[in-house]
Amino acid sequence: MISFEKAYDIVISSEVLLQTENIELANVLGRVLAQDVHSDMNMPPFDKSAMDGFACREADLHMELEMIEVLAAGEIPKKKIETGECTKIMTGAMIPQGADCVIMVEDTEITAEGKIRYTKIERKNIEVCEACAPSSKKTNKNICFLGEDVKLGEEVLKKGVVLKPQHLPILASAGCANPLVYKKVSVGIIATGSELVEPHEKPGLSQIRNSNASQLVAQVMACGALPNYYGIAEDVEETTKNVLQKAVSENDLVLLTGGVSMGDFDFVPLIMKELGFEILFDSIAVQPGKPTTFAIKSGKFIFGLPGNPVSSFTQFELLTKPLIYKMMGHAYEPVHLKMPLEVGYSRKKADRMSWIPVSITKLGTILPADYHGSAHINSLASAHGFIAVPIGTKELNKGELIDVRQI
Amino acid sequence: MISFEKAYDIVISSEVLLQTENIELANVLGRVLAQDVHSDMNMPPFDKSAMDGFACREADLHMELEMIEVLAAGEIPKKKIETGECTKIMTGAMIPQGADCVIMVEDTEITAEGKIRYTKIERKNIEVCEACAPSSKKTNKNICFLGEDVKLGEEVLKKGVVLKPQHLPILASAGCANPLVYKKVSVGIIATGSELVEPHEKPGLSQIRNSNASQLVAQVMACGALPNYYGIAEDVEETTKNVLQKAVSENDLVLLTGGVSMGDFDFVPLIMKELGFEILFDSIAVQPGKPTTFAIKSGKFIFGLPGNPVSSFTQFELLTKPLIYKMMGHAYEPVHLKMPLEVGYSRKKADRMSWIPVSITKLGTILPADYHGSAHINSLASAHGFIAVPIGTKELNKGELIDVRQI
Repeated sequence: MISFEKAYDIVISSEVLLQTENIELANVLGRVLAQDVHSDMNMPPFDKSAMDGFACREADLHMELEMIEVLAAGEIPKKKIETGECTKIMTGAMIPQGADCVIMVEDTEITAEGKIRYTKIERKNIEVCEACAPSSKKTNKNICFLGEDVKLGEEVLKKGVVLKPQHLPILASAGCANPLVYKKVSVGIIATGSELVEPHEKPGLSQIRNSNASQLVAQVMACGALPNYYGIAEDVEETTKNVLQKAVSENDLVLLTGGVSMGDFDFVPLIMKELGFEILFDSIAVQPGKPTTFAIKSGKFIFGLPGNPVSSFTQFELLTKPLIYKMMGHAYEPVHLKMPLEVGYSRKKADRMSWIPVSITKLGTILPADYHGSAHINSLASAHGFIAVPIGTKELNKGELIDVRQI
Repeated sequence: MISFEKAYDIVISSEVLLQTENIELANVLGRVLAQDVHSDMNMPPFDKSAMDGFACREADLHMELEMIEVLAAGEIPKKKIETGECTKIMTGAMIPQGADCVIMVEDTEITAEGKIRYTKIERKNIEVCEACAPSSKKTNKNICFLGEDVKLGEEVLKKGVVLKPQHLPILASAGCANPLVYKKVSVGIIATGSELVEPHEKPGLSQIRNSNASQLVAQVMACGALPNYYGIAEDVEETTKNVLQKAVSENDLVLLTGGVSMGDFDFVPLIMKELGFEILFDSIAVQPGKPTTFAIKSGKFIFGLPGNPVSSFTQFELLTKPLIYKMMGHAYEPVHLKMPLEVGYSRKKADRMSWIPVSITKLGTILPADYHGSAHINSLASAHGFIAVPIGTKELNKGELIDVRQI
């Protein structure tokens, strides 16, 4: 039996084989960049109007201006602005030569002769639109200048970034329409246990439904990896060996649930060895999830997870998920928040580290999930995270600031 | 121009048409339950061993016990336990009649005569396994009793629950293999602007790349809804009208970007009216995103979002996302955290509410994103949330506790 910290170190220090592929922007959500991205152009690529208005010379603002052109976004100006002239310009359009500012439509009026008059001249400055780059030092006069946001060749995103919606405009603007990303990890999932039937079946007298596999499939999906479910393996050595061998050959990582405690039919560790895997640990001083087993063989991994769905959920979150992320180039760090306990917590034994599911209340406190009676299987349903109770600690006090690991 | 709070009220009070469907467990992640779920059986469905060990009578623990049967999980016991007898039993197997406790394998030894002796008898109690239901009052003696977790017919999940991996074991155990969930909302996305080309194209002299649409597609996907992208509509009234009409007929909600400010080619509001939509607002006292427009027509919705990707991202998060969630039966409440400002913040004008992207530092403080220069388009990339600066407030002080809305 090793400590949880040691088990985590072993898992996260494993050497992984990173694989990459180029994919379309529409599919990049949640993927990890495997390249630095440099812009293939200046942004903006030209001096651009930040608003709808009139492009003119600031020195002419006291004059009535003659409108010489109307410029939509996307059009190239045909005329140069001379003294006393202006061009009606739409947001995003190119500033014509000779103009050095844009005045807002709302700050102008049209004279009887059809000329444009700036109505805020008494303020002695240009009313600047805040919609675009509100506090940029360079953006004033309602012009976004060439290269003001990004210079040609500038690095805009670094390798290792986990792509969120807000990264898409950066990739798109930089011309990176097929970014190189890390491949999704494929994860085989096998449930073991002769007592199991699938959820759509009615269990017989001594049977229960397989509640673990669908949860693991969903956990793998939530990590952005690819689950492959191999069904229920009966507690027969040959059957289990065959399905594990197939799953290992077809996936980067295999998760087994059940079959790893001390029963006569728990031959999973034996099979792992027969398939050439080295078992790095088979017991952790942690609760829940003590019999969690981890085995490796040249870049492939197997986790033997407990059959209890609360235990397997927890150990997946704590150990499997960080490994899956590492295999996808993802420098995963769970969010940790310090929050006060809403109620005290105690336990009778303190020989293992306990991971307790907690919910975050509207008061900003944390509430350990109720493990009692019918709530047992529901204890994770409303959890926002876990707290760890270290070995040797039997009590946590109400109000104590505790580190919450968000899930 | 209306306040942000008023705009939010209008959006979130809209009447929506909820549609439901039955789907398989493998696809339920992120979907919202449209039914209460009741268990079709007791859980456990029989008195079940919580561990690998020997089922026997507590009164016999001082005796050497004869092993009369070996029970794997899934097997039905053939023999009844009488005084001086025990059955070797695996985790999850059914407790044989006559037994009232299970002793752990680790706490036993085999005598020379092949009998089983409990080695912890001096402690005068049964060493109870903590792996299963650790603090349950009823679970002791290492037996999980029939119906201890859930009773036949008991409600285990409520309508409205957003399904996470940890709900899957509950659905599976309850026999709810095809739960009724709300349908995904289909969201049409149209980019408007003659200056736009798609990210894989090289912009001409007065053009820029369409950086907004891919971001909106990803935001819609991140909500669990179905994006349908209709491409770039040039700033020609007939073109825009045709594509909007098509998108409206094929989707529950349509997002347009651009075309909603005050330029000569911003005829989107006019087209909305021509298609029979009622515009509920077209200007919000908020920054960024002032020209955000919202229109409805008998259960269908259109958002006109600004062309600037920072503005459209923000208003999508603040207004569109809550509506999409409502349309999928999802009682969405963004997570709010109170955290201290790492640095002071100030702005020149306070006539609109500002939403500022912030990152959460490792110190547990919040840092407003840098809006300056080249960081402009990157300001959201590292953001963990937004803070709101109310109308009338020009400054926030370093250390001040601020409400952070997580994204």
